[in-house]
Amino acid sequence: MSSGKHRVVIVGGGFAGLSAARALRKADADVTVIDRANHHLFQPLLYQVATGGLSPADISAPIRGLLSKSRNTKVLLAEVTGVDVSARSLATTSGPVEYDTLVLATGSTHSYFGNGSWAENAPGLKSLDDATAIRRKILLAFEAAEQAKSEDERRSWLTFAIVGAGPTGVEMAGAIGELARQTLKNDFRGFDPSTARALHIEAGPRVLPTYSESLSPKAEKSLKKLGVEVLTQTRVTDVSEQGITVERDGASEEIPAKTAIWAAGVQSSPLGAMLADSVNADSSSGELELDRIGRVPVNDDLTIPGHPEIFVLGDLASFPHQDGSPLRGTADVAAAEGKYAGRVISRRLKGKSAPKPFRFRDLGKLAVIGRSSAVADLRFLRFGGFLAWQFWLFIHILKLVSYQNRATVLVQWASSYFSRNRSARLITGKLDWSELKGGATAEDESDSGRGAA
Amino acid sequence: MSSGKHRVVIVGGGFAGLSAARALRKADADVTVIDRANHHLFQPLLYQVATGGLSPADISAPIRGLLSKSRNTKVLLAEVTGVDVSARSLATTSGPVEYDTLVLATGSTHSYFGNGSWAENAPGLKSLDDATAIRRKILLAFEAAEQAKSEDERRSWLTFAIVGAGPTGVEMAGAIGELARQTLKNDFRGFDPSTARALHIEAGPRVLPTYSESLSPKAEKSLKKLGVEVLTQTRVTDVSEQGITVERDGASEEIPAKTAIWAAGVQSSPLGAMLADSVNADSSSGELELDRIGRVPVNDDLTIPGHPEIFVLGDLASFPHQDGSPLRGTADVAAAEGKYAGRVISRRLKGKSAPKPFRFRDLGKLAVIGRSSAVADLRFLRFGGFLAWQFWLFIHILKLVSYQNRATVLVQWASSYFSRNRSARLITGKLDWSELKGGATAEDESDSGRGAA
Repeated sequence: MSSGKHRVVIVGGGFAGLSAARALRKADADVTVIDRANHHLFQPLLYQVATGGLSPADISAPIRGLLSKSRNTKVLLAEVTGVDVSARSLATTSGPVEYDTLVLATGSTHSYFGNGSWAENAPGLKSLDDATAIRRKILLAFEAAEQAKSEDERRSWLTFAIVGAGPTGVEMAGAIGELARQTLKNDFRGFDPSTARALHIEAGPRVLPTYSESLSPKAEKSLKKLGVEVLTQTRVTDVSEQGITVERDGASEEIPAKTAIWAAGVQSSPLGAMLADSVNADSSSGELELDRIGRVPVNDDLTIPGHPEIFVLGDLASFPHQDGSPLRGTADVAAAEGKYAGRVISRRLKGKSAPKPFRFRDLGKLAVIGRSSAVADLRFLRFGGFLAWQFWLFIHILKLVSYQNRATVLVQWASSYFSRNRSARLITGKLDWSELKGGATAEDESDSGRGAA
Repeated sequence: MSSGKHRVVIVGGGFAGLSAARALRKADADVTVIDRANHHLFQPLLYQVATGGLSPADISAPIRGLLSKSRNTKVLLAEVTGVDVSARSLATTSGPVEYDTLVLATGSTHSYFGNGSWAENAPGLKSLDDATAIRRKILLAFEAAEQAKSEDERRSWLTFAIVGAGPTGVEMAGAIGELARQTLKNDFRGFDPSTARALHIEAGPRVLPTYSESLSPKAEKSLKKLGVEVLTQTRVTDVSEQGITVERDGASEEIPAKTAIWAAGVQSSPLGAMLADSVNADSSSGELELDRIGRVPVNDDLTIPGHPEIFVLGDLASFPHQDGSPLRGTADVAAAEGKYAGRVISRRLKGKSAPKPFRFRDLGKLAVIGRSSAVADLRFLRFGGFLAWQFWLFIHILKLVSYQNRATVLVQWASSYFSRNRSARLITGKLDWSELKGGATAEDESDSGRGAA
C-alpha cells in the first residue's frame, strides 16, 4: 500500500463487493477487499446446505482464489469495527486501513423485529455456519424423534415451523417437506418420517409476497404436494425451546414444535449505522438518515450525498427502483451495482467523465419448491412447475462463480434427482446428549429411565 | 425390540461395524447399530478434508441411509457409557440397551503418549470435526502470515510441523506441501506461499515404518519434491502454542511453528477398558488383559475368551497376524473382520456349525504423496510414483461406500488434478480475531497498533 497509488477499499466479498473488485482488475489502483469470512458465498443455494442437499464448499469459493489473478488486489481477513469519513480511515481487527475510495457492501442479517432472544430457538439463514447449524438442528430432531419416550414428545420433534414466506422461507419449507417425505422415507424404525409436519407461517395474505399475485397459488400448491401446511395471515408472537406461539384470526395458539427456522425479516449490516454516525459527526455535509431496516440512501451513481468517494452497494444500499420503492436485496441487484461502481471508479482514475446513472435491468425472479417445481416471475413471462424448475437449475448452475463448483453441483443434483437422496446429511459439531432429550415438562427431565449409567 | 428375536447390538458404524451389519441384513434377528456420529466415515481420505481437497460429505454417508434397506436393523445415535457382561446390557446416553450378541467396533483415537495437554496445539485426525478444525488451523495460519508484523512472526505462521511418518502423516505432509507450493501460489500479496516450511518429524529411522524398507526412500523423495523437509530419528519432547521442541542426535531444539499436526500414535477406544473391567469383575471367566495400546485380545473367531456372545473387531481388537504381530488397524482389516463376525452370527442363528477361523488375506498397503505420486506395498509387488498414484485413486474411488460419493469425488479430483486447485478451502466456525495475532512475545500482545478502534 506504499506504492502511492489510489487506494480503493472494498468491504464485503459478497456479490456486490466481488463484482466491484473484478471490475477494477485492470485499474491503476491498490485495491483491498476486506471480509470477515475467507469465502464468497452463493447465498441463493444456502437453503440446500441447510437441508443436506449440497456441501458448504459446493456453493462457496475462497475470495483469494477468485481474485488471485487481480495482481492489484489484496484480500484481508478482518472485521471492520469503525468508520472515520473525515480521516478516510477504517478501524479493523487487523489495525487501521486508509482509503481514497471506499466501497461498503456488507449486506444484511436477520431481523427478529426487536425480539432478538428468539434467535436462539429460531435461527436464520445467512452464512455457511448458519446453514450447518440448521442442518444439524433438523437432522437431530429426527434422531430425537426415534428416541422419544412419548407420542407427544415425538410429535413436537416432528413439527417444523418455517417463519416467513419469502423466497428463502418457501425454499426451506419445500426442502424440509421433501426431506421428510422422500429422502428419509426408509431411515427410521420407530416412526414414519412422512408424518412429520412442516408448518409454513406467513403474516401476510399470501406466499411469495414480492412476486406477482398469480404465482402465489402455484407456489402454495407445490408446497402442499410436499406435505407443507401453509398458514397465511398468521403472526408469530413468541418462540421458545418448546415451540412457537402464533396469533391467527385474533386467537392465540401454542404450537409444540422443537424446530423453528426464521426467514421473516432482514436488517442491514451495522456498518450502515457506523457510516451514518461518522458522516453526521461532521457537520459540514448534510445529514445521512438510514431507512427503517438500516439501509443507506444512495445517489444515482451509488455514492452517498456529500461523499463522492464513498459507494454503498447491495443489501446495505437503498436505491430507488423505477416504481419508487428501493431495489430488492438480491444477488442480481448486488452484482449489477458492484459492476457499476467498479466502472465509475475506473473511469475516474482515467480522468474520464462519469457514466450514465445506475439503472437496474430487472430480468425477473425465481424461487424453487422441492425437487422438481419452481416459480418464475420474469419480465414478460410468469410460469411455474417443472419447466420453471429446469430454468431455475440452469440459471443457478450458470451463475456459480467457479468452474469446479458448477461441475460438482451438477453431479450432486443429477444424482439426487434420480435417487431422491440428499447425501450431505451430516450432523457435525460436538454433541451434547441432552439435546436429544424431550424436556417438554419438568417430569420428563427428571425421568431416570433415560439417564446414562 | 419386543419381537422376541435374537438381539444383536453392534457398537460403532465404522468399517467393521458397518460390514457386520450388512452381513446380518437377512438374519432372523433384531439388529441395533449404535454410533455417536450419524455418519460412516471413509477415514483413508480424511486428510483430503483436512487440507481442503474434499468436503466432509464427499467422504462420509449417513449410517441410516446405508442401512435403510436392512429392515431388521435399527440405528441409534448415542454414546455407550458402560458395559455389563453378566447382565448382557449396555448403558448409553439414550438409556440401557440389552443384547444377546454384542459386537464392539469402536476403533481408536490419537495417543500423545501421556502428554494429553499437547492435543490443544497439535490436534490429531480421526473425525470430520477434527478434519475441519485442522483445515481451519492451516488456512488461518496463511491468513495470519499475510497480516504478520515481523518476519519472525510470519516465519512461525508459515512453519508447519507434522509429527509421525505413518501413512496419515505422510499424506498430510504431502498435501500441505502441495497446498503451499501449488494451490495458494497466487493468493497472497505480502509473501510467497512457496516459502512455507513443512517439517515432517519421525522418531524412527525412516518414513512409512510399517511398509517395506525399499519404499521409504521413494516416499521421502516424493515428499522432498513437494518441499517437505523430512526429519527422521527426531523425537518431539514438547508442544506449545509457539512451536515444538525436538530432540535430535542428543541435542534439544526449539522450532517456532504455529501449526502442528499429530499423526504419531493411536490408542484404542475406552470401550475396551470398560469391557475388560466388566469381564474381570465376574470371577467365573478368566482375566481379560488389554495390550499396550488398549486393544482387546480375541480368539480366532473374533470373540473374547469365555464370552462367545461378544465379538471385538477392527482397531479395538488384537488379532494375531500370520507372523505373530497383531493385524494392523486399517480399513481393509476392519471390513474383513466385520464380514466374518456377521457370518459367524448368521450361521449360529441358523444352527449351523462355526466357519473356519478368521484369516486376513492381505492384499497390500497404499499411501499417497501429493497430487500425482504414491507408494504401493502389495502382496507380490512394490512400486511408487505416478502409477502407484493412479492405482491408489482407482482403489479409493471404488471403495467409497455410496455411488453419490464416488461420482462427486471423481469430479472433484479430475477438476483439482488439472487446476491444481483445492476448492474446499473454507474457514468455518466463529472467528476469534485474536487467533490471527502473533503473540510471540508479551510486547506483541500489548501492541496497540493492532488493536481495534
